[in-house]
Amino acid sequence: MERLKKKDQYVVAVVGATGAVGNEMVQILEDRKFPAGELRLFASERTAGEMMSFMGRDHKVALLDKNSFSGVDIALFSAGEEVSRELAPVAVSSGTVVIDNSAAWRMDPIVPLVVPEVNPEAALTHQGIIANPNCSTIQLVVALKPIHNAARIKRAIVSTYQSDSGTGKEAIDELIEQTKALLSFQEVECRVYPFQIAFNLLPQIGSFDEKGFCTEEKKLILETQKIMGDSSIRMTATTVRVPVFRAHAESVNIETEKKLSPNEARALLSEAPGVQVYDDPGRKLYPMPIDVAGSDAVFVGRVREDASFDNGLHLWIVSDNLRKGAALNAVQIAEGLVEAAT
Amino acid sequence: MERLKKKDQYVVAVVGATGAVGNEMVQILEDRKFPAGELRLFASERTAGEMMSFMGRDHKVALLDKNSFSGVDIALFSAGEEVSRELAPVAVSSGTVVIDNSAAWRMDPIVPLVVPEVNPEAALTHQGIIANPNCSTIQLVVALKPIHNAARIKRAIVSTYQSDSGTGKEAIDELIEQTKALLSFQEVECRVYPFQIAFNLLPQIGSFDEKGFCTEEKKLILETQKIMGDSSIRMTATTVRVPVFRAHAESVNIETEKKLSPNEARALLSEAPGVQVYDDPGRKLYPMPIDVAGSDAVFVGRVREDASFDNGLHLWIVSDNLRKGAALNAVQIAEGLVEAAT
Repeated sequence: MERLKKKDQYVVAVVGATGAVGNEMVQILEDRKFPAGELRLFASERTAGEMMSFMGRDHKVALLDKNSFSGVDIALFSAGEEVSRELAPVAVSSGTVVIDNSAAWRMDPIVPLVVPEVNPEAALTHQGIIANPNCSTIQLVVALKPIHNAARIKRAIVSTYQSDSGTGKEAIDELIEQTKALLSFQEVECRVYPFQIAFNLLPQIGSFDEKGFCTEEKKLILETQKIMGDSSIRMTATTVRVPVFRAHAESVNIETEKKLSPNEARALLSEAPGVQVYDDPGRKLYPMPIDVAGSDAVFVGRVREDASFDNGLHLWIVSDNLRKGAALNAVQIAEGLVEAAT
Repeated sequence: MERLKKKDQYVVAVVGATGAVGNEMVQILEDRKFPAGELRLFASERTAGEMMSFMGRDHKVALLDKNSFSGVDIALFSAGEEVSRELAPVAVSSGTVVIDNSAAWRMDPIVPLVVPEVNPEAALTHQGIIANPNCSTIQLVVALKPIHNAARIKRAIVSTYQSDSGTGKEAIDELIEQTKALLSFQEVECRVYPFQIAFNLLPQIGSFDEKGFCTEEKKLILETQKIMGDSSIRMTATTVRVPVFRAHAESVNIETEKKLSPNEARALLSEAPGVQVYDDPGRKLYPMPIDVAGSDAVFVGRVREDASFDNGLHLWIVSDNLRKGAALNAVQIAEGLVEAAT
């Protein structure tokens, strides 16, 4: 696979443009003035035909098929695993570089899994497909990498509080509808989630394996090790869906080889790319979903010594799952490709 | 202090009867047919005068003062730390045994801190006051004790998902009002919590110490060690308020001295008093707040090996914070006193 050829303007496609992440991708391409001379938007039959705005012009969303990629330089995929498995190779064979937001290719050994603040160099080894990690993984590795570099993380234990927008637009609607129903003492309907999500907690994201781990937990563990390039980090996770619209939170306990004080950790994080330290609990400063939604950074607060380990630290990590957790990270990968284009 | 004198019927007082926990105490005394020949209900000026039903009869809530305890055998206090600090000793000096649900006396070395399934014997050493632990502690120790007995817990890392009813009735109202406001695009008012709780997460319960731990986190750590009678357990916690009305959830990682398989842990928990194992994730069986609210048991699910430790286990523990987490545990302590009365 050749690298992206240097151009002034690129033809960019967004596959799954009408979804929660696809929407955000279009917005972020515009916000960051990505050199997209032409933007092609694709979706399935359900939403093809809708109009979306980009750079002040209306764009009609076209029906995705095998011929959609002719002339496309970069395609951002966010249309689910099945579409990515089937059509990413088709796009690659028409010369398109695919940045794929699904789980389809993430653990493929020849596919780089990239968070630009953590392993930007990996993107340049691509064979046509670059995988965008899972939302809960991205915010975790952005915060853990500077600490790993300085003190080597031996162990990480993560419990998540994940918002509904991670499931998609229908889940946001379901949370609104269920909430309205409950407040007016009506029956709740469950279509997206197996159980009521309004005023409830679902300790399941994805399906379970024989060891009792759900898909999201395995993603968090395996993707983190792959992106950090260190499978010796002993990681575990519990992932929980909470009735929040946007931004995921993570309660993280780490054990490091070298002792780091909370102040040292805060200093490292303050200088780390993509991280914003928001940590002064005495003044009630800590990251919360409602403040973080719509922001680009990974916010870290509640940095404290975890005395359950000799070298332990607590971190509370919150980030917008649709932006840094998905669309922004994908666009940043594309920016890296453009920068390295020759 | 003498033990409770054996009687057929006792004079029972509920202090803070109109609060969320007080209400539940009255209900549970009735449900469990506690031998309360007379029930006296007390509250502050704000709600004294209200009527409450007990055993089919209306009871007027009286204004609490220093003379409220004459002739009272057992007083269940749930009116906050300040009231307990001031009036529990007054009650004791009038011969009343106080079971106190506030944090006022819990860490006092001469006051037993009791969860009947865990350390019932401690109650019998009381000097007039028995402390009822914090809600998030009670459900944790009920689930951890059988594992500790079998395999010794060396380390426990807890992240909580705590419902608003833990803060009281006003917090439930605030969650409802804020939710309604947001769904109709109106401004949100914060009176009980410092920030919006609807569709949000607050990583603060109580106030912060100089190490960055909040009160709830310290309670969870210190109370667990006191109740388990083992300060060598290395414990830490992150406590988070979530937009759920009732029942607290805890994501718990433990390291044990002796290896326990998930099956062995489930078997121990299945036989443990007060625990209900609800764990078959493949069939989507795991405890959730909406199912657990109103139940007496501590529900445990998502029992899995935590491979971040050689001998590690994951537990997902959910219980009704007003029942087992507060009122039920207090009534069970009172039942133990009645049983031991001579």
